[in-house]
Amino acid sequence: MNRNVEEMAALAEDGRPNYLYERICQRLEGQISGGTYAPGEQLPSLRRMSRLFGVSVTTVMQCYRKLEADGYVEARPQSGFFVRSREPAAVPAAPSGPDLLPTEVGLSERVLERMALHREPSLLRLGIALPAIDVQPVQRIMRTLADVSRHRSMDAWDYMHPHGHEALRHLLARRSLTHEAPLSPEEVFVTSGCMEAMSIAVRCISRPGDAIAVESPAYYGTLLMLEAHKRRVVEIPASQHDGICLDTLERAFARGTVAGCLFSANAQNPLGFTMSDTAKRRIVALSARYGIPLIENDIWGDTVYDPGLATPAKAYDSAGLVIYCNSFSKTLVPGFRVGWALPGRFLRRFQEIKLLTSITSPSPQQIALARLLESGAYEQHLIELRGCLERQARETGEAILDAFPEGTAVEMPSGGCVLWVRLPAGVGAERLFEAAVEAGVHIFPGTVFSSGGEFDDCIRVNVGNPCSAAVRAGVGKLGRLAGELAA
Amino acid sequence: MNRNVEEMAALAEDGRPNYLYERICQRLEGQISGGTYAPGEQLPSLRRMSRLFGVSVTTVMQCYRKLEADGYVEARPQSGFFVRSREPAAVPAAPSGPDLLPTEVGLSERVLERMALHREPSLLRLGIALPAIDVQPVQRIMRTLADVSRHRSMDAWDYMHPHGHEALRHLLARRSLTHEAPLSPEEVFVTSGCMEAMSIAVRCISRPGDAIAVESPAYYGTLLMLEAHKRRVVEIPASQHDGICLDTLERAFARGTVAGCLFSANAQNPLGFTMSDTAKRRIVALSARYGIPLIENDIWGDTVYDPGLATPAKAYDSAGLVIYCNSFSKTLVPGFRVGWALPGRFLRRFQEIKLLTSITSPSPQQIALARLLESGAYEQHLIELRGCLERQARETGEAILDAFPEGTAVEMPSGGCVLWVRLPAGVGAERLFEAAVEAGVHIFPGTVFSSGGEFDDCIRVNVGNPCSAAVRAGVGKLGRLAGELAA
Repeated sequence: MNRNVEEMAALAEDGRPNYLYERICQRLEGQISGGTYAPGEQLPSLRRMSRLFGVSVTTVMQCYRKLEADGYVEARPQSGFFVRSREPAAVPAAPSGPDLLPTEVGLSERVLERMALHREPSLLRLGIALPAIDVQPVQRIMRTLADVSRHRSMDAWDYMHPHGHEALRHLLARRSLTHEAPLSPEEVFVTSGCMEAMSIAVRCISRPGDAIAVESPAYYGTLLMLEAHKRRVVEIPASQHDGICLDTLERAFARGTVAGCLFSANAQNPLGFTMSDTAKRRIVALSARYGIPLIENDIWGDTVYDPGLATPAKAYDSAGLVIYCNSFSKTLVPGFRVGWALPGRFLRRFQEIKLLTSITSPSPQQIALARLLESGAYEQHLIELRGCLERQARETGEAILDAFPEGTAVEMPSGGCVLWVRLPAGVGAERLFEAAVEAGVHIFPGTVFSSGGEFDDCIRVNVGNPCSAAVRAGVGKLGRLAGELAA
Repeated sequence: MNRNVEEMAALAEDGRPNYLYERICQRLEGQISGGTYAPGEQLPSLRRMSRLFGVSVTTVMQCYRKLEADGYVEARPQSGFFVRSREPAAVPAAPSGPDLLPTEVGLSERVLERMALHREPSLLRLGIALPAIDVQPVQRIMRTLADVSRHRSMDAWDYMHPHGHEALRHLLARRSLTHEAPLSPEEVFVTSGCMEAMSIAVRCISRPGDAIAVESPAYYGTLLMLEAHKRRVVEIPASQHDGICLDTLERAFARGTVAGCLFSANAQNPLGFTMSDTAKRRIVALSARYGIPLIENDIWGDTVYDPGLATPAKAYDSAGLVIYCNSFSKTLVPGFRVGWALPGRFLRRFQEIKLLTSITSPSPQQIALARLLESGAYEQHLIELRGCLERQARETGEAILDAFPEGTAVEMPSGGCVLWVRLPAGVGAERLFEAAVEAGVHIFPGTVFSSGGEFDDCIRVNVGNPCSAAVRAGVGKLGRLAGELAA
């Protein structure tokens, strides 16, 4: 399985086309020569080819590498394989890093393929960050939705007010009572999930071509969303201890190269840090001083294991420059598609864009969620959920340290349901990802958490599942594969 | 109430500030002089001021006209009132019309205020185009959702596949069996309503700054959505008999000034026309000849009173250049937020943008809708709905002709639930709108259906409600107001 490319290529060159990948190569060479794929055209993705020919992703990769070696195609970083063209190569994106130059994001092809694997029933779900159905109160949630459907049918049928269900907004506003300036229900905006909230927020504060500061590493979903909106990014280093580097962020603000900053203060994905209160106050103060808006992604905030630490940065936002985004997808139910935003001074623009994106959010769910909040069931559930996630993170982390080769490092996160695993030198997260998928385990390589494809020495592991025998077996497989790659 | 501005101004000038609008004027003059509103800054909208001071929109309008006459503010077409600046005025947008030049859309402030009135419980709902809850099978829909919540709780809880629920996609694909090239379920994409589908479609085929051809008049929602995405429009004249003028559209295609065309072939809103099969084939052929994609908004297609005429243009799309958009919001239930698209050759890009906009659409609703389609309940309901809407359109149309002054013209639409009413000379749709809102009736003035504010001689009236005594009384009021304005 991890026989290397050179070896496979050598075997193929002896003229016996008895390897699947060799037959695929021959077919593709014919198609390229025959003009089916024109110069400059992109070849199908690894995953699509893998399905098409019924072979593994690794096999397709070997085939593409062979075509590359033979001069038929070229690999473009973060894009895929393209038929070689006689035209001059595209200008590469400007480098990122300490120079703080904005860079284009070009992750989508690579990451979407990898996200799609989440639903492969044959794969163990250690990829997508999501608490498993086992740790969520599914029956309670669904009974509430059924009740709403039966007894509030008129309200559940109609368009909801574009701002959202009044009772729900009221209850969400009540969560801000500990903020320095508590919010009124009129300042709460219900959305179709946190991604929609962030996507609208980005459009509130910037235009295509603008750069947004993000943590590095950052949740790949926000990088992809920025790519889809043609925003560039400035990646600010973040650490598991201190979070996003505020000195570097201030330099970016001072230079005026960014239109805003999208960040998480609580249980950041993938690093798992929670910023100190001092740091939260400071990032909000920086925003106010430079007049640069913040987008706070707090989707993991309610899972911080010590909820006393989980005050959002928004709590210190007296200038109204923070657009706060959250949802119930991780803490209760992903399929409802209900999130919310506190857009601060951008409320009016937020409303306009929401109305023209999806008009309003689903009605039955909003009424059901209001009931779950009103009854106290949500807060009660969070206590249990935090306990489960913390235990799962600890147990899975220990299993990883047991199974993985020496030099592997895992830190306990402050909340959420992912572990950021540092691999020993030589393993390579991309290679481990490919091998893991072949072996039936879905993880994310660190490379998808930055626009520049850094972090090939890290993987992210979902600990949303109870640390069952199946999870332990999967972790064991990963450890063995890492060992083989390290050797 | 319709005392004119000059008269009010004259009354005010005699020094007795006993009119509310005079007091508001004085206050605003003070704020402008004092710098609360800076030069170039926009004053609050009519509706917001009306709420703020507890006076009518008309009163606020009179006040703003007074400030304008006094040189404090200036009205900018389709934007609102701005504090007068010493800087040179902004360059006006290029003119639209037969020269086919792309124009900026600047409707949002004006239209959003008017849409918001839809939910004023004091107003008769003749504004928003929506079949009333009375003509929808609400109990059946909600019972199905309750059943799904109870018995399919695992599936309803989880993220749905980004493409949508498999059974639903299968059933939607089956509707294409009469197309020249029937579609597979893989070519169907479930969205959060038709607006999301169109919004993603626009981003699939164009970039900010590009121009999109639209009918004139067009549904204001599509104009607003294009504005929100920074697209310009080229408005192509459309008539109630022949629909969008294909010769003019071809000229726009030939000149290469548009990146695509967004249109409706069936029961177009607001005109109510349904294109002939010949015209549908021709628009698709034009798209293929010039390689310019079409976005087909078919949200009213299932309400065409003679369903034999309602073949979508997409049925003739062998080149895959048509992105078809539809939803269940008008034909079954607006609060579910479920629509779908057939993105043709843009499938991959569509998937990417959807994932990064709202990840996926709500799960419980998709399963419930699949059941309603599977059981035949949806098709059965459509037969009843078409009958109701046709009767309501006829009866309300007759009531309008009875109540309105001579010279008013209404044509029976081919489907949908709106009437496009042509007013006699001198009435003015904007003035009638303001007066109607004061009198407790919500309608839409024709001016919101074009980016240039044309059609001040038309109003659009929703006939989604049974033509009850309340509707007849509302129509009677409208007719009397129109008579007063005409006089």
